[in-house]
Amino acid sequence: MKLKLGDKVKIITKDKEYIGIYVPSPSKNTFILKLDSGYNLGISKIKIKSIRLIKKSKEKKFKKEKIKFKKKLPTVLILHTGGTIASRVSYETGAVISRFKPEELISMFPELKKIANIKSKLIFQIFSEDIRFSHYNKIAKEISKNMNVKGIIVTHGTDTLHYTASALAFILENIPIPVILVGAQRSSDRGSTDAYLNLISAAYFIAKTNFQGVAICMHSSINDETCYILPACKTRKLHTSRRDAFKVINDSPIAEIKKSEIKFFKKPTITKEKFKLKLIKPNLKIGILKAHPNMYAKEIDNYKNFDGLILEGTGLGQFPINYLDKSTLENKKTYNKLKQLSKKIPIVMTSQCLFGSLNMNVYATGRKLQDIGIIGNYTDILPETAFIKLAFLLSHHKKDIKKLWNKNLRGEIDKRILPEQYLE
Amino acid sequence: MKLKLGDKVKIITKDKEYIGIYVPSPSKNTFILKLDSGYNLGISKIKIKSIRLIKKSKEKKFKKEKIKFKKKLPTVLILHTGGTIASRVSYETGAVISRFKPEELISMFPELKKIANIKSKLIFQIFSEDIRFSHYNKIAKEISKNMNVKGIIVTHGTDTLHYTASALAFILENIPIPVILVGAQRSSDRGSTDAYLNLISAAYFIAKTNFQGVAICMHSSINDETCYILPACKTRKLHTSRRDAFKVINDSPIAEIKKSEIKFFKKPTITKEKFKLKLIKPNLKIGILKAHPNMYAKEIDNYKNFDGLILEGTGLGQFPINYLDKSTLENKKTYNKLKQLSKKIPIVMTSQCLFGSLNMNVYATGRKLQDIGIIGNYTDILPETAFIKLAFLLSHHKKDIKKLWNKNLRGEIDKRILPEQYLE
Repeated sequence: MKLKLGDKVKIITKDKEYIGIYVPSPSKNTFILKLDSGYNLGISKIKIKSIRLIKKSKEKKFKKEKIKFKKKLPTVLILHTGGTIASRVSYETGAVISRFKPEELISMFPELKKIANIKSKLIFQIFSEDIRFSHYNKIAKEISKNMNVKGIIVTHGTDTLHYTASALAFILENIPIPVILVGAQRSSDRGSTDAYLNLISAAYFIAKTNFQGVAICMHSSINDETCYILPACKTRKLHTSRRDAFKVINDSPIAEIKKSEIKFFKKPTITKEKFKLKLIKPNLKIGILKAHPNMYAKEIDNYKNFDGLILEGTGLGQFPINYLDKSTLENKKTYNKLKQLSKKIPIVMTSQCLFGSLNMNVYATGRKLQDIGIIGNYTDILPETAFIKLAFLLSHHKKDIKKLWNKNLRGEIDKRILPEQYLE
Repeated sequence: MKLKLGDKVKIITKDKEYIGIYVPSPSKNTFILKLDSGYNLGISKIKIKSIRLIKKSKEKKFKKEKIKFKKKLPTVLILHTGGTIASRVSYETGAVISRFKPEELISMFPELKKIANIKSKLIFQIFSEDIRFSHYNKIAKEISKNMNVKGIIVTHGTDTLHYTASALAFILENIPIPVILVGAQRSSDRGSTDAYLNLISAAYFIAKTNFQGVAICMHSSINDETCYILPACKTRKLHTSRRDAFKVINDSPIAEIKKSEIKFFKKPTITKEKFKLKLIKPNLKIGILKAHPNMYAKEIDNYKNFDGLILEGTGLGQFPINYLDKSTLENKKTYNKLKQLSKKIPIVMTSQCLFGSLNMNVYATGRKLQDIGIIGNYTDILPETAFIKLAFLLSHHKKDIKKLWNKNLRGEIDKRILPEQYLE
């Protein structure tokens, strides 16, 4: 029997039986079944006694609707960059939508046509973990060429969606329209998909408000009922699989969307300044180094040819740099390497605690770090956002990095925690 | 006027006046005041118009109580390793307690003497960010020499307390008594200190239960009323300053302590196996590398002379390794370096999402990573615990790392997420 991908099969091993859809396997020795739960199960081929075909995979065609332009509705542009949200790859049906035409989007998400006139474009299709600075620039350029719409939705893989949100917030200075990033934690071919609500909610938010700037629209809870509009620079993926994986850190959501009802948690700011497209230099080398026990000076030295370094320190902004006796000799070496590197490139402190803000005056370690030029005291910026902000400053404000680090440029720092001298 | 550290002063600048305690400054150009809120404020010396002395610092002597051994009470040993919890450095009084005698502890925490007979020892006094593997061994040896008590409290700086908790859990195999790590987020000289409740709660927990093994005792909320006993390998510091900074991830607390009342959330396990002291090799070099956009292959190559590497991947366990076109050429190089390194040293995947578990079968990236030998699929281990577990396995089970990685050895993996083949 020749099995085809997408066939529903029963696999019988010595002890058990499994029913699922036959999907591609990473290894010759393993058979992968997509179970009804949506998850994949790997079964060693040597364990398999027999395989029975339960249902052949069948091709299903999507009905393509003709779209009428409705004068009363605003226009929303949907830009696709990859991820599971819009690429409905269903092994069950064999159908793949990848051309990303408005008709296809509307056949997948019919409610869209009631909310707005939909334009769409596939910019690229990439796993979000593979995204590089050049991709940010590509998305930003596409946005800057299309600002004659009510707003733009960027569909994106969730793994690095928050990095891209930060990047677009920095690149698109004073953007006068909403740019809403939307992902899906469960692919559109699963019953539990969050794609529908996330996309529809983003469309309602754009159609019904005058929000300006970059934000994220994702589920507010595991219930498939409400979404949050989340601040681009204060949000982080905090769960590998839950629909409400995206959490605001050191801030609050911007708004909640329940069907078409929108409730703002804070007053959106209105931009009057001129829009500027401030692209990130694609070849910048910036590292992220997390403090951990038993560090070696080599871990600092690794970055000697980089353009900048983000430290994920411990607690209020500490790093293992203190020498007490021979048991901590390596910490002294780490200190010396840090001191040396800090003369060459900007080194920024953040906290691996994620929540809360830095205070590098409380303990001697933080004061020593400040003395050798480590930047970051009094900020509550996320390490991921810090990484993007450093790339932005290295691209456009290289001489003012120290000064601008403690300024809140895009909502990345809670101004209330900044000491007076930064608030002028 | 000659000011002394600890003096209460009023500082007058051009625009403002500040009142606080004069504390040491990291820089010659800055004057640091400890405000009533407990936080420090730096003021540029050039801005200062005048300084007025409000109250001289005064030395206060602690009354040392004589301790009587009470036959009815259990004995608890308190081992001090550093951190703010027991080193009451008060600028207000000038008094410093650092010898860590039982009498001093009881003068600071009088309730202790009602709960247990207290023995104490200062092992070392170190900022917890500076702790190295050799320190874990020193603490563990001290514990192994003192198992004739009801239980042991280890006082510790909070920054890396969760790493040490994991390390002790792995090193002290089948420990028959409770070892409870306790820290304080606010130092004992502040009104808002959490030191008292954390220490007293740990003592009650040891005195009143038959718990065996390593755990953490810290505040359960910002109210100074209840503590949690937290699992050593499933807890992480998730706030820079809050009293309830320690959060359980992918698990639940073990118990709650309200004054002397203890409520268990799960049945503690009883150890019948023989206790073994399994020290960690102090010179192991293990790195932690977090996936981020725009990575360079060099960031992998940095670890070529290390003994092991923890990856903090994105989402379900991904890393930027896919080549699509010239925009992602560097990702291909990263893939090649990872493939090369994986032949030499164990490389383990964890998720920077922290919450949730890995599933490296869902996407092609995860499957490719498994193909080149990256370990970690189906685990929900924290990156910090993974770092410690890898050090432990490299020290004692070097040939079985792949096999043992997916076994739950110390509560570091939720067994329910493991596929069948790991549960035998």
